Amino acid sequence: MQLKPYKIKIKTGGPLVAVLHDDTAHEMDLHVGDRLRLKSDRSMITALLDVTRDNFPKRKIGLFAEAYEALNIEPDDVVEITAADKPPSLLFIRKKLDGLALNAAELNEIVRDIVHGDLSDVEMTYFVSGCYANGLSDDETAALTKAIVRNGKKLEFKGKIVADKHCIGGVPGNRVTPIVVAIVVASGVLMPKTSSRAITSPAGTADAVESICNVTINAHRLMKIAKSVGGFMVWGGGVDLAAADDRMIRIRNPMSLDPEGMLLASIMAKKHSVSANHVLIDIPVGPGVKIKDAAHAQHLKKRFLQIGKMLGMKVKVIITDGKQPIGNGIGPLLEMIDVMNVLKNEKNAPDDLRIKSIMESSILLELTGKARPGHGKKMAEHLLKSGHAWRKFQQIITAQGKKRIPKLAKFSKNVAAQKSGMVKAIENKSIAHLARIAGAPKDAAAGLFLHKKIGYRVKKGEALYTIYASSPDRLKYALEFAKNTGYKIK
Amino acid sequence: MQLKPYKIKIKTGGPLVAVLHDDTAHEMDLHVGDRLRLKSDRSMITALLDVTRDNFPKRKIGLFAEAYEALNIEPDDVVEITAADKPPSLLFIRKKLDGLALNAAELNEIVRDIVHGDLSDVEMTYFVSGCYANGLSDDETAALTKAIVRNGKKLEFKGKIVADKHCIGGVPGNRVTPIVVAIVVASGVLMPKTSSRAITSPAGTADAVESICNVTINAHRLMKIAKSVGGFMVWGGGVDLAAADDRMIRIRNPMSLDPEGMLLASIMAKKHSVSANHVLIDIPVGPGVKIKDAAHAQHLKKRFLQIGKMLGMKVKVIITDGKQPIGNGIGPLLEMIDVMNVLKNEKNAPDDLRIKSIMESSILLELTGKARPGHGKKMAEHLLKSGHAWRKFQQIITAQGKKRIPKLAKFSKNVAAQKSGMVKAIENKSIAHLARIAGAPKDAAAGLFLHKKIGYRVKKGEALYTIYASSPDRLKYALEFAKNTGYKIK
Repeated sequence: MQLKPYKIKIKTGGPLVAVLHDDTAHEMDLHVGDRLRLKSDRSMITALLDVTRDNFPKRKIGLFAEAYEALNIEPDDVVEITAADKPPSLLFIRKKLDGLALNAAELNEIVRDIVHGDLSDVEMTYFVSGCYANGLSDDETAALTKAIVRNGKKLEFKGKIVADKHCIGGVPGNRVTPIVVAIVVASGVLMPKTSSRAITSPAGTADAVESICNVTINAHRLMKIAKSVGGFMVWGGGVDLAAADDRMIRIRNPMSLDPEGMLLASIMAKKHSVSANHVLIDIPVGPGVKIKDAAHAQHLKKRFLQIGKMLGMKVKVIITDGKQPIGNGIGPLLEMIDVMNVLKNEKNAPDDLRIKSIMESSILLELTGKARPGHGKKMAEHLLKSGHAWRKFQQIITAQGKKRIPKLAKFSKNVAAQKSGMVKAIENKSIAHLARIAGAPKDAAAGLFLHKKIGYRVKKGEALYTIYASSPDRLKYALEFAKNTGYKIK
Repeated sequence: MQLKPYKIKIKTGGPLVAVLHDDTAHEMDLHVGDRLRLKSDRSMITALLDVTRDNFPKRKIGLFAEAYEALNIEPDDVVEITAADKPPSLLFIRKKLDGLALNAAELNEIVRDIVHGDLSDVEMTYFVSGCYANGLSDDETAALTKAIVRNGKKLEFKGKIVADKHCIGGVPGNRVTPIVVAIVVASGVLMPKTSSRAITSPAGTADAVESICNVTINAHRLMKIAKSVGGFMVWGGGVDLAAADDRMIRIRNPMSLDPEGMLLASIMAKKHSVSANHVLIDIPVGPGVKIKDAAHAQHLKKRFLQIGKMLGMKVKVIITDGKQPIGNGIGPLLEMIDVMNVLKNEKNAPDDLRIKSIMESSILLELTGKARPGHGKKMAEHLLKSGHAWRKFQQIITAQGKKRIPKLAKFSKNVAAQKSGMVKAIENKSIAHLARIAGAPKDAAAGLFLHKKIGYRVKKGEALYTIYASSPDRLKYALEFAKNTGYKIK
């Protein structure tokens, strides 16, 4: 059938979508979710059908922006519509939902169709559900990782030793990455670091770094920066390295669903796609973080090591203490101030952040063979104390595009201890929530500064932390929320 | 934040949806799939957020038609946007995905949110996936059935005996329903029958009946028809009886996914919502139909009986022979001609269709107590032979709005046996596919007429069946497809 096209001036950001009036679809024996082959005089595409009841012209075909453009429509064109076959990847998704294992070719087909926009949100959701409900074996996880990398952009550093790190999040203020990058790159090891933005936390590494320099840089320029200064720290979303992964995360977010194999593949694909071959994974364990107990952490550790082996990566996994925030600042800029204080060897730099950063750097220095076994710590400390790391950090942020460091949010107030005693616990989740109420990460200069950590003695009325808020309203809400939460003193 | 609204002139047909530019969403710390509380001067709604990259104005909020109308927007209005909480039903969906059982209140909450459009397609897909991967117990299935009925329209026939039937499809030409309705209603038992249209078959009961009368009738008029003539046979989709079910079917279609518990609930809810309390379920078994083996049929039978008991329905389940098509006609009008030939006691009426219809009618007559045990068959035969059923049929189609019976599709050709011998098998799937190629169900007058069934002796060159096609092209394609498929002769 031939119909006149009708442009819907919206991008779907996903698959190509066409819309028909209910009656027109019925007449053509077509249903929601069917695939259509659409032909204009200039082009041919496959699109997914959406059907609408009223408020839409009969005898016309609606085309969302991407589909309209792909068809190269010109005035007076008509579009020839025929039913198209379903892609074989749907059979493989069904297979996974039925509890059967998928091989590498099948997983690659699914991932390729996801990247090409050939699967609808509903179909992708079935894939995520199948992986969640029935799990992914090590073989499947390694194959999924490779498929994600194969169907995305890759930064190639052939024959080079490339270091990377990842932390399974949840610990507020845990901003070791910029320090580790500075130390490792200062040692001469390549570290092309991509990071994510916050979704539910007060800051991702990309948000924090963005408070002092540009983090959205294309692949071409990244290769130049890596060549000239030996590394970078940017937002992964700006490079489109693991496009399939980004689409699957979009599907996982509404339910906060993290199918284990998919989580592993997602992390490893991001390392693989920057050609990392020496990788440190940090799994913090604690009541308020993602991984709640040691047994779960051990299980994940084993899987990371196994998948790493299958991908030909040297992987080291550490299980760390996630019971309280790390550093003093919570929020993009406040965390970067901690980072710079450590790198500049300032007296008021937070000890816990410095110690964890040196520990992680030393592991990477030894793993990459830059330091002999047992000598990583000394090398890392030297690179930090001597100012080498700080100079490398300056080179990197200058290469990325340095910004003037902003001022802290101007509405601030101390929260005081309501009794004297010792700080027994700091709730990660409440602290993170409080920093978000104050305005982080949207306002990079908002957040908290923690004066007291677990084990500190405090007197009634003494400041536990300072809230920096982006507006008087936010400060008021934060102070209200702060009343009964965050710190436990005994 | 306050933004100017921007109307997107398309109905989503599902949840209320709002669209923001990527940058605006980022600035407001909002993500795809988040729920927004939107306030205009006149109204307040909750909508799901979609995010788009370009081609869309920043600092405006796009509203799909339903959301725009629900907000009652007037010129110069602005919309106040705040983040809204996720509905608790998402936690229950997650629970099901995690393999845990849901109670009646939780299932009701999910179904209510589906009907109110509070869940996105992705979220509904997670529900379907959870039910598919982890199954639904009898308790859950009965609770889901009740929830679907509670959250939809219901036709109430208080205190009345109400008969209904359902066939787990897949057998082409199996058009017993209109005959059973005519016989049962002629006996004085209420039978308010709603049926579906074809999705992948050449005709659903609703398509077949629609070839000779109107089948899209609202609930109010249906109650009047039931009162005046004792029953009807209409399209279920026109009454909106099980709205949640229709939405879930939309999600299940792209993957042809039939989670067993959901399938049972879907069928039973449709019976329950017309107040049926005496129900016959037909499970055909055969190589080319939905249920392939006797063990599966027995398992389903047991579950139907159990769920029926829990819902307070008298249920009888029969397992029938589905190895070949029933009747001679395949396609809406061709099947109705068979139906009318049986009802008019014509000599050329197909025996198998008449026998199966009498069998099913007799079961319902006995189940409802209209006939004493063992006397149903005699009563059904009498109602048919005497012309009572035919007159009742005429009353029903007149009440629904009789059409002039159309002519058969004008491009027709016989397909002849390529050798002499006995018909050993007729492939249901090929026959159905062939009828669809010929134009059914879109063209109600297209399809096949089978001259020979299993066990018939044929001579080489003798007609096996006639193809009625809606165009010369379709006839050509059908003849090509017919060459190597459909009949097995030995």
